[in-house]
Amino acid sequence: MIRKPHATSAPVGDLRDGIARAGRRRFLTLAAAGTAAATVRPAVAQTRRQVRMVTAWPAAFAGFADSAGRLARRITVLTGGALTVQVIPAGERMGAFDVFDAVGAGEVEMYHALDSYWQGRSAAFAFFAGVPFGLTAEEHAAWIHHGSGQALWDEIAAPFSIKPLLAGNTGAHQTGWYNRPIRDPGELKGLRVAVAGLGGQVLRRLGASAVALPGRELAPALDAGRIDGAEWLGPWNALAIGLPSAARYMAYPGVFAPNTAITLGLNLNFWAGLPVGQQQAIVTAATAESAMSLAEFTAGNTRALVTLRAEHGITMMPRPDALLKALGEAAGTIVGETARSDPQAQRVYDAFVGFRQAALGWSRQSVQSFLNARLLPFPYGGP
Amino acid sequence: MIRKPHATSAPVGDLRDGIARAGRRRFLTLAAAGTAAATVRPAVAQTRRQVRMVTAWPAAFAGFADSAGRLARRITVLTGGALTVQVIPAGERMGAFDVFDAVGAGEVEMYHALDSYWQGRSAAFAFFAGVPFGLTAEEHAAWIHHGSGQALWDEIAAPFSIKPLLAGNTGAHQTGWYNRPIRDPGELKGLRVAVAGLGGQVLRRLGASAVALPGRELAPALDAGRIDGAEWLGPWNALAIGLPSAARYMAYPGVFAPNTAITLGLNLNFWAGLPVGQQQAIVTAATAESAMSLAEFTAGNTRALVTLRAEHGITMMPRPDALLKALGEAAGTIVGETARSDPQAQRVYDAFVGFRQAALGWSRQSVQSFLNARLLPFPYGGP
Repeated sequence: MIRKPHATSAPVGDLRDGIARAGRRRFLTLAAAGTAAATVRPAVAQTRRQVRMVTAWPAAFAGFADSAGRLARRITVLTGGALTVQVIPAGERMGAFDVFDAVGAGEVEMYHALDSYWQGRSAAFAFFAGVPFGLTAEEHAAWIHHGSGQALWDEIAAPFSIKPLLAGNTGAHQTGWYNRPIRDPGELKGLRVAVAGLGGQVLRRLGASAVALPGRELAPALDAGRIDGAEWLGPWNALAIGLPSAARYMAYPGVFAPNTAITLGLNLNFWAGLPVGQQQAIVTAATAESAMSLAEFTAGNTRALVTLRAEHGITMMPRPDALLKALGEAAGTIVGETARSDPQAQRVYDAFVGFRQAALGWSRQSVQSFLNARLLPFPYGGP
Repeated sequence: MIRKPHATSAPVGDLRDGIARAGRRRFLTLAAAGTAAATVRPAVAQTRRQVRMVTAWPAAFAGFADSAGRLARRITVLTGGALTVQVIPAGERMGAFDVFDAVGAGEVEMYHALDSYWQGRSAAFAFFAGVPFGLTAEEHAAWIHHGSGQALWDEIAAPFSIKPLLAGNTGAHQTGWYNRPIRDPGELKGLRVAVAGLGGQVLRRLGASAVALPGRELAPALDAGRIDGAEWLGPWNALAIGLPSAARYMAYPGVFAPNTAITLGLNLNFWAGLPVGQQQAIVTAATAESAMSLAEFTAGNTRALVTLRAEHGITMMPRPDALLKALGEAAGTIVGETARSDPQAQRVYDAFVGFRQAALGWSRQSVQSFLNARLLPFPYGGP
């Protein structure tokens, strides 16, 4: 029943990229947590306990690693050092895809990763990271916090001795970086595209060959023509690895990952043994960081797109409706097949698809209609 | 320079509605905070301090009052009772619009309100609650947390002895509830519409007469034909006051309030005197609650719209482009005039409009394009 997770299920490219730069452990002592150290009351500090957070990313991976660091510091400060959290980047103590087993076995207390990595254990995990043509970040949080999401997630993760918490979100991403325009579903046939996770299955269904490549290899591979395109993160992360310089077209929207949730996974026994005050500190820190993370990705991508438009000769390529419909139908089929692979996944799928169906209504009449209205040609402010 | 705030600047209708039901103070003792009481360490409990959070809403106002309660409990638990927060609903100790002065003067430690209420003090406050045709909730958080927002907000609020924090968000709201279809800007002339804040100025500019009415009076007024429409909250809050039964048309999108941020405002001296650990507890609790609040409004409106469509004979009325363009242009003019009223507001406006301009780009190529693609006709899951 328990299978090894598949590295190819990672939707965020090579998360081990940059491990070379992660040559030291970032041990978050109270001193490193800054002036907060001064406020720790002696009676609390006596109970100080070192806990470890292993991450599925190296120490320098914009958006992901910083978020893990902020979360570790918040937990440390909020518990007055009673839980002093040490961040261990991928590749230092274990590989990115080993963190789930290590936390489940109690070797370390918590991981910071995408739960889609554990689809090999239960297909249901896909829904807690985000699936092609699924929910937006706002809808995902609504489903987790004020829908059936958290209860189902707890149920799926418990057999693996994991307590999962929503701790971050990339927002809409996985933009397509291509070297040829793709206007029609037929043009996908035979194309070599670097893409991870369920998005790869969607593209394969439409005749493309989906390949897995580390993030740092994407730009060279595009440049050399070894691949025709890459579905990766938004402009912020893409600029960091030179993708916009290697690609001629930026295809949008990124339908394979309308949101990607980041998980703080805790060993269940460790979690259950904590005083409720410390549990609340961890939940609150994770929830706060989920907002900070989404805000950071949004701000980062907002600024990076301005830079990209001003300084790179990349052509924006809105995906035509015929292509989007073909991708959407293939996504629906792949996500449905994922669910049918086991009864637990089917139950999560039913809840997820039910919430998605309802969300289509309100999102259409609120944020979507507003965003469309805001783009109509009318004067608004300006310098 | 310091003027009284105007009650008519409240964008959420009558927030004092339901005061009759708020007959008791909700004093959040540690016992009330649940099992967390058991975890309070004696050394911490010795320093227990009672602090008061006055709210601009009564004790029973869906989304707003619950959020204040959750926030108070989180701060209490995270500080181990060192800050034991008592929520005081509007109308008990002071009126909804008196909370700003009371916190500024140090009579109470914190308020939970919309900062648009204080536009009479500085026009700049409007931008920290949200303005017509402005930012979405996701963009607003990005501007506050990872743009220039928080620094500007601190600067605007400091002269009033307030430290402001983002503590909640309604998401896109202020749907229009009407008894006649409005397809053309010309049809707004002479219409009597209940609407608060800058939205009222926008409608007046297009020839409507904007009136201020308490939330509980909206449905009777619509029923009796004393008003032709009301711009109010989303389906969740509207169902609670019977609006969908009194209106024949639901007009969308709600362009007057694409997001409304909820503020936790703290007395600046109180804030500055706190140990950094307690400051961090408050910031983290507020940030976490901003995510929980947005998720609750999103889930609440998502479900309520399904109910509303199934059980009420209301006609959905998408606003035509010509109407939206006229509203957008009027909004741009009103927001610009608001900014020109003083140099501080102009500076905030410049930063806000700059961020908005950049956000138009990324939001268009990410969440907006995705939402449009998701609505194309293709099969996706289903039972």
